[in-house]
Amino acid sequence: MSDFSHIDKSGKAGMVDVGDKAETDRVAVARGFVHMSDETLEAIEQRRIVKGEVLQVARVAGIMGSKRTAELIPMCHTLPLDNVKVAFRSMPEAGGLAIEASARCRGKTGVEMEALTAVSVAALTVYDMCKSMDKAMHIGDIHLVKKTGGKSGEFVHPS
Amino acid sequence: MSDFSHIDKSGKAGMVDVGDKAETDRVAVARGFVHMSDETLEAIEQRRIVKGEVLQVARVAGIMGSKRTAELIPMCHTLPLDNVKVAFRSMPEAGGLAIEASARCRGKTGVEMEALTAVSVAALTVYDMCKSMDKAMHIGDIHLVKKTGGKSGEFVHPS
Amino acid sequence: MSDFSHIDKSGKAGMVDVGDKAETDRVAVARGFVHMSDETLEAIEQRRIVKGEVLQVARVAGIMGSKRTAELIPMCHTLPLDNVKVAFRSMPEAGGLAIEASARCRGKTGVEMEALTAVSVAALTVYDMCKSMDKAMHIGDIHLVKKTGGKSGEFVHPS
Amino acid sequence: MSDFSHIDKSGKAGMVDVGDKAETDRVAVARGFVHMSDETLEAIEQRRIVKGEVLQVARVAGIMGSKRTAELIPMCHTLPLDNVKVAFRSMPEAGGLAIEASARCRGKTGVEMEALTAVSVAALTVYDMCKSMDKAMHIGDIHLVKKTGGKSGEFVHPS
Amino acid sequence: MSDFSHIDKSGKAGMVDVGDKAETDRVAVARGFVHMSDETLEAIEQRRIVKGEVLQVARVAGIMGSKRTAELIPMCHTLPLDNVKVAFRSMPEAGGLAIEASARCRGKTGVEMEALTAVSVAALTVYDMCKSMDKAMHIGDIHLVKKTGGKSGEFVHPS
Amino acid sequence: MSDFSHIDKSGKAGMVDVGDKAETDRVAVARGFVHMSDETLEAIEQRRIVKGEVLQVARVAGIMGSKRTAELIPMCHTLPLDNVKVAFRSMPEAGGLAIEASARCRGKTGVEMEALTAVSVAALTVYDMCKSMDKAMHIGDIHLVKKTGGKSGEFVHPS
Repeated sequence: MSDFSHIDKSGKAGMVDVGDKAETDRVAVARGFVHMSDETLEAIEQRRIVKGEVLQVARVAGIMGSKRTAELIPMCHTLPLDNVKVAFRSMPEAGGLAIEASARCRGKTGVEMEALTAVSVAALTVYDMCKSMDKAMHIGDIHLVKKTGGKSGEFVHPS
Repeated sequence: MSDFSHIDKSGKAGMVDVGDKAETDRVAVARGFVHMSDETLEAIEQRRIVKGEVLQVARVAGIMGSKRTAELIPMCHTLPLDNVKVAFRSMPEAGGLAIEASARCRGKTGVEMEALTAVSVAALTVYDMCKSMDKAMHIGDIHLVKKTGGKSGEFVHPS
Repeated sequence: MSDFSHIDKSGKAGMVDVGDKAETDRVAVARGFVHMSDETLEAIEQRRIVKGEVLQVARVAGIMGSKRTAELIPMCHTLPLDNVKVAFRSMPEAGGLAIEASARCRGKTGVEMEALTAVSVAALTVYDMCKSMDKAMHIGDIHLVKKTGGKSGEFVHPS
Repeated sequence: MSDFSHIDKSGKAGMVDVGDKAETDRVAVARGFVHMSDETLEAIEQRRIVKGEVLQVARVAGIMGSKRTAELIPMCHTLPLDNVKVAFRSMPEAGGLAIEASARCRGKTGVEMEALTAVSVAALTVYDMCKSMDKAMHIGDIHLVKKTGGKSGEFVHPS
Repeated sequence: MSDFSHIDKSGKAGMVDVGDKAETDRVAVARGFVHMSDETLEAIEQRRIVKGEVLQVARVAGIMGSKRTAELIPMCHTLPLDNVKVAFRSMPEAGGLAIEASARCRGKTGVEMEALTAVSVAALTVYDMCKSMDKAMHIGDIHLVKKTGGKSGEFVHPS
Repeated sequence: MSDFSHIDKSGKAGMVDVGDKAETDRVAVARGFVHMSDETLEAIEQRRIVKGEVLQVARVAGIMGSKRTAELIPMCHTLPLDNVKVAFRSMPEAGGLAIEASARCRGKTGVEMEALTAVSVAALTVYDMCKSMDKAMHIGDIHLVKKTGGKSGEFVHPS
């Protein structure tokens, strides 16, 4: 493809070629946080949000979003996920709702983007369902908690 | 993820983790029926429906829909399908059109949802293409006929 | 396009051209039924299904599926939906769970396919979530209950 | 639909019915931040990331993701967007990269979710493209900056 | 958004903002050609291709692909199409199969990309269905034939 | 499925069943060409196109489109791609821009459609981004350059 690069120096950029990598069992865990008022958090816990049961809807959205990671993130590989979980934790002392997602697959590349996408879509869904009562919400601290499998071995976030 | 469950008792709900299951060869067959007037059934058979050749279009829609099962059904796993077939049978004595779909894959989980989704989308497409001449159509009896592969072995519908 | 039809007699088939139709307010209501054992129905009502709260997940799936009707059904027009609702009714006397969906839009063509798709995807999701305990379930009687708006006026299903 | 609610108290939950709302011109602006090491930020600025030009790819991903907001967020309405913009600002003093997205449409409901989704998908793409050199990145402070149009008038985030 | 451009000179690039443009009735017609052997063309005409009726399947694929143009082409606006047609013409004297697609909408921006995408996806589908008997096929001459509506008025391709 | 074919002679048509094929390492390379005026080609090379950096955007679109091949082409199998590359070559002497894409996977069926789809979507994106300055562009000569892997061995296009 050498002739194809003279106006396009980044010709080798793109997806990472994983064709020569071995399949291993991979797990990734990610977290995020939706900052909100105490009133909003209580309304979620007491299932009073008009648009529906926020955590149920956000869990489904996170799981479904995770399965579409490779459609959203340009250089991600399509992975057949073995599992995705999304869970929530009310943290009034920290001013909001924590979200945790884990993703698992047997594949040639990691599943951290799938876990991070699950958290992001779940967080956006929480925001969408509560925004009529709390426009000052914000989504923060989306990060990889840990990841196992693959050549680089286990990673645990330093924080 | 224990701390993540106190407002969310169903925290373990979600996709079934298939990470420890073995891949086996799996086949599922599903059927459904579109009830319609004799006139509509004849118009399909004689290729007189204005929107096009109903069975050709419905077959394509069923196959394409089947490939997107995991996008539609929240807890379904993404499966690389080895094959999907959709076929039709005119049954004027039963008052309509029977649809049969089979799906096959090598995977950790069954393909019954892929076969059922193929039948459902094909049936909806038949409905859509004929609805201007027959608003009283209805779609019925969508069920799994049989399934093979996997730990639970062969299933054949009792009916 | 006349020269383009000699090997392709159905050259005029395809989508209905709605370019000259006026936009009107349109509503459609559809229903379907998932036949299941009493045990399965009770497990849904008592929120004991392992994969999660069936009706919550099926509602979300039905709403999301409805928004993608034009991706699934080849000749459907893309419609900006103003509303989709999905509701359930336990009917042990009839042996299962009834599903009702309504769709609304302001557009040039009806929303019956959107309501029927919402019912179908919700029914498939119920099936998927309960299939490990009840393989003999079947989905039936998916039909249009009524539709308003558009040139053809109101339709109410004869049954 | 009254009979359809007895096992399903949240039967009225779901999308907000916007069928009776007027179309107005709507704009929303959202922001987010990707925290990263100085080395990573410099590598982005100097276009040394192996996977390609990070900001170009992330902009495209953000714009494309924004157009699919209603597919990802269950209760969002499908909106025909008039415009989406995604821009970046290197902020070494704050330890990372700021992302801003604006979305515009003429519609019955706001476009804040489209702007927030653009920011989120762009941020995830930055993360994906840089993660091989910086696993401790995290995504933060995704919030609505302002929104105009609609009955509730202008909103400007208090921060 | 001025502060958001210093590492990102192309910050104003992206979708064209059509928020201030008027909606007009728009039509676009595009064509393409699939070059193939006489044997392949005859096999299509005589419906002998193993994978199915090529033109029926390619028409459906072209129409469905056209509805997803804005998902595929990054800077395209989402348009509610009023109509898409795909037709074919056997041209043995020219060594292949001509494809023509027309798209129509009422919108703020043109539908040429929708017509061109319909032609492209239909051509790829023809290729896919015939490739086992003819690997030397190629797809050519995809171009806009004419377009009407919008500020720039009518365009007719000079060829 | 024998009873299911009497009104539907093409009942066996559809996807090729690859369930009994072995997985092999597969690579395909495809090319295409966008014919354009010298002015347009220069504007691309000098990054003066208003909608953004054409080749960057087209590369991302081609890669993302390639991952969705099985959604667009009805009889294509879903493949987990190991790699997709898209590159460009300015050829003023030939009157335009050449596009080359390669796709790689380990699978039961070839990746030529994925490479051809990458080229097609990249070409359509180039067209879309430049069409305001050059309506007479056309896309041509989309063909498979070579393919390796699978039972039929290596193929090199005769041209």
